[in-house]
Amino acid sequence: MRNLKCVVLGGGGFIGTNLCRHLRGRVGELRAFGRSRPFPDALKGVEWYDGAFTDTTELAYAVEGCDVVFHLISATTPASANLDTVHDLQVNVAGTLALLEMCRAGTVGRVVFVSSGGTVYGIPSQVPTPETAATDPITSYGIGKLAVEKYLGLYRHLHGLDHRILRVANPFGPYQTAHKRQGVIAAFLRRALARQPLEVWGRGDVVRDYVYVDDVVEALEKAAVHQGTERLFNIGSGVGRSLTEIIDDLGAVVGRPLETVFHEGRPVDVPVSVLDIARACRDLGWEPRTEWRDGLSRAWDWLRAAELG
Amino acid sequence: MRNLKCVVLGGGGFIGTNLCRHLRGRVGELRAFGRSRPFPDALKGVEWYDGAFTDTTELAYAVEGCDVVFHLISATTPASANLDTVHDLQVNVAGTLALLEMCRAGTVGRVVFVSSGGTVYGIPSQVPTPETAATDPITSYGIGKLAVEKYLGLYRHLHGLDHRILRVANPFGPYQTAHKRQGVIAAFLRRALARQPLEVWGRGDVVRDYVYVDDVVEALEKAAVHQGTERLFNIGSGVGRSLTEIIDDLGAVVGRPLETVFHEGRPVDVPVSVLDIARACRDLGWEPRTEWRDGLSRAWDWLRAAELG
Repeated sequence: MRNLKCVVLGGGGFIGTNLCRHLRGRVGELRAFGRSRPFPDALKGVEWYDGAFTDTTELAYAVEGCDVVFHLISATTPASANLDTVHDLQVNVAGTLALLEMCRAGTVGRVVFVSSGGTVYGIPSQVPTPETAATDPITSYGIGKLAVEKYLGLYRHLHGLDHRILRVANPFGPYQTAHKRQGVIAAFLRRALARQPLEVWGRGDVVRDYVYVDDVVEALEKAAVHQGTERLFNIGSGVGRSLTEIIDDLGAVVGRPLETVFHEGRPVDVPVSVLDIARACRDLGWEPRTEWRDGLSRAWDWLRAAELG
Repeated sequence: MRNLKCVVLGGGGFIGTNLCRHLRGRVGELRAFGRSRPFPDALKGVEWYDGAFTDTTELAYAVEGCDVVFHLISATTPASANLDTVHDLQVNVAGTLALLEMCRAGTVGRVVFVSSGGTVYGIPSQVPTPETAATDPITSYGIGKLAVEKYLGLYRHLHGLDHRILRVANPFGPYQTAHKRQGVIAAFLRRALARQPLEVWGRGDVVRDYVYVDDVVEALEKAAVHQGTERLFNIGSGVGRSLTEIIDDLGAVVGRPLETVFHEGRPVDVPVSVLDIARACRDLGWEPRTEWRDGLSRAWDWLRAAELG
């Protein structure tokens, strides 16, 4: 990657901040673009471009001259997207089309896109779910991600712009703020730190695939230079965990049992989502290396340091 | 269907005109909505609502009080959509989202959507192609159709609005005008009638699945009242024919060999597209009943009557 100019779109966000910290010093030039960066100190040495995804002028500056674009931007969340499907479509999908036009007109050789392993499949027909499974999202968020995946295929076909798509499961780790009502582990840890009860939507039996952010970042790096015919990879732990299990394990990390309150389930939540990661292991030369409990501990340590100083 | 109020969106178009003529007198009330109706006489007895798909006020009038919405509108074609992908997305996909909001807020129980059997699969991994095959369109048109399919699934999940999706192959027959550079058989017949050479993009080996419009209309009618768990059906003949074969068969119908000129192939054309129609035959109780040569003859007879009076 030494000779590559890279830009991380959404570089101030959770995965983006981690990715920038990892790539810093390992690539020829590193830029980050986004609307905000809650942890500016964490991004020292990264050239910051401030702008909204819909601001194509600022976006064009950030992308100009780059070889690789990491596209991590999402203006909505699985829960919020359903509240205004048209807005979701306009910003995320139409915004990405504008980006792809810039990329193919410019120097960009590859777009690495973070798609959503937890929403594109909808209620899965197979568990763990391989990349070849049916994709019937039950959120507008998932439909938008899927549409972007398809447009990437189109731009490759029509214009030779290459891409890799990572359908990332539920990532967790440092710099996850839970401010956008996304990221249950960060939200739980925050409540635990504040000694407030954890809030659970549904009965706690919702099963998800949680993957530590360092592992995601490693997959992103590999995807930027991957040679091979596969362009779509599930990135997760391959292991399903219920909210109840997580709460128990978090209690062990925090050092005391955690109190919970239960709310009614949300229609955007599929009952189970676990990814089959065999393709990424085989073809991307990647595997999730972080032990589950280690990941939780590191997330907890980071949060305490960040909040308590 | 006797007690159903129906509206055909795109009722002035090729399939729409045929559908209205078929449904007229067989349903409780029949409306047609569209930007234009080139054959107003053909739509006698059908209540006409004039409007663009993006004109949500007019659209709302047309949909109000209906039980079934046949959604046949496409503001673009496979070739034109790639020229302005954002426009395609705005009009067709965002427009359909506005429609779905109206439907779920109102009386509509079911949306029957005409999707594209020739473009949603992209370059097919299997031929004939079943509904379960991978969907990797190589046109923005196909991506838009696919996105609408997914939003229909979302609205059923979130709001209980039911739907049926017909992935229609290449339809042909009366009222196909070929004015939007769509419909190769109509275009060929028109050239033949004008004694001009037929224009072929590529080498004539492009294989498609052609289905007579009366058969499509019958599938649409069945889809409006179908009870069953399948909601997605391929509608075609299930038979692949190359352009070269078609030109021979058209020559037999017209009564003389037809001259051709060849142009360079277009990147939007997949080399082969033939649908597996087993699901529709089994589950929808439908089959294509029109003999190929009969269909061509009827299309030719209609065109001569329309043009020569």
